[in-house]
Amino acid sequence: MDKLNLIDGVILSPLKIIENPLGNIYHGMKSSDSGYSGFNEAYFSTINYNQVKPWKKHLKMTLNLIVPVGEIRFVLYDERENSKSYKNFLDVTLSKKNYQRLTIPPNVWVCFKGIGKEINLLLNLANLNHDPNEIVRDNMNAFKFNWSS
Amino acid sequence: MDKLNLIDGVILSPLKIIENPLGNIYHGMKSSDSGYSGFNEAYFSTINYNQVKPWKKHLKMTLNLIVPVGEIRFVLYDERENSKSYKNFLDVTLSKKNYQRLTIPPNVWVCFKGIGKEINLLLNLANLNHDPNEIVRDNMNAFKFNWSS
Repeated sequence: MDKLNLIDGVILSPLKIIENPLGNIYHGMKSSDSGYSGFNEAYFSTINYNQVKPWKKHLKMTLNLIVPVGEIRFVLYDERENSKSYKNFLDVTLSKKNYQRLTIPPNVWVCFKGIGKEINLLLNLANLNHDPNEIVRDNMNAFKFNWSS
Repeated sequence: MDKLNLIDGVILSPLKIIENPLGNIYHGMKSSDSGYSGFNEAYFSTINYNQVKPWKKHLKMTLNLIVPVGEIRFVLYDERENSKSYKNFLDVTLSKKNYQRLTIPPNVWVCFKGIGKEINLLLNLANLNHDPNEIVRDNMNAFKFNWSS
């Protein structure tokens, strides 16, 4: 059976929230932070309630994902045969309640599901510009992850 | 009377929204974009409904501001005596309806007001890390801007 465990090269970095009566500040990323590997593009993704964006992996890009609004469940899968976490899943839900940055190295599969009923917003700080040629996609049932667990 | 006009060095860059039934993609910034001047920190600010974060200016930092959730009204003021837009205000409201990136060079004053009744979220992609020594603050009435206009 696959273990629910950390995946080699994946980093979860707790982030600070600075409270302010006019409106809070939420840290994101500094270029000196662990997991930073250059900046080429920042973009937002949203995922609607109960929807899943199916498995994809990047062949070159390192992702740095932050969820400042709503709640998103990420499932990662390690299909790298030489990895010490080969065949591991990582299952982590990010939101303001669990406010962390998720760094995903190239060649690790990821899919994500909208948990919040309103807006679920994800920022990706990427070290490469979007390039469809370095993205591999698969369907939602590719890796037998049990979403109801 | 001060003119409501553009301010020298300030850039408004229209951004793409890519619609998707599972959840849209919202462009942010590429390192090749106009207004990019290096990456050192990304952080979010929120501003509550009807609240104003008072005037401040950065002496060194260039701000790149994007509003992916809610609606925020920005007012900028040019107090640089050698600027061709000296004493001009810029009054611009950003949201998904007017989805643009606002680039603010150093030494231009900015304050902003929460217009949306729910979450109003701002991403700043900054070329310098946060440093209180390069920030100058003033109170909300410093520059006689008529918010009700």
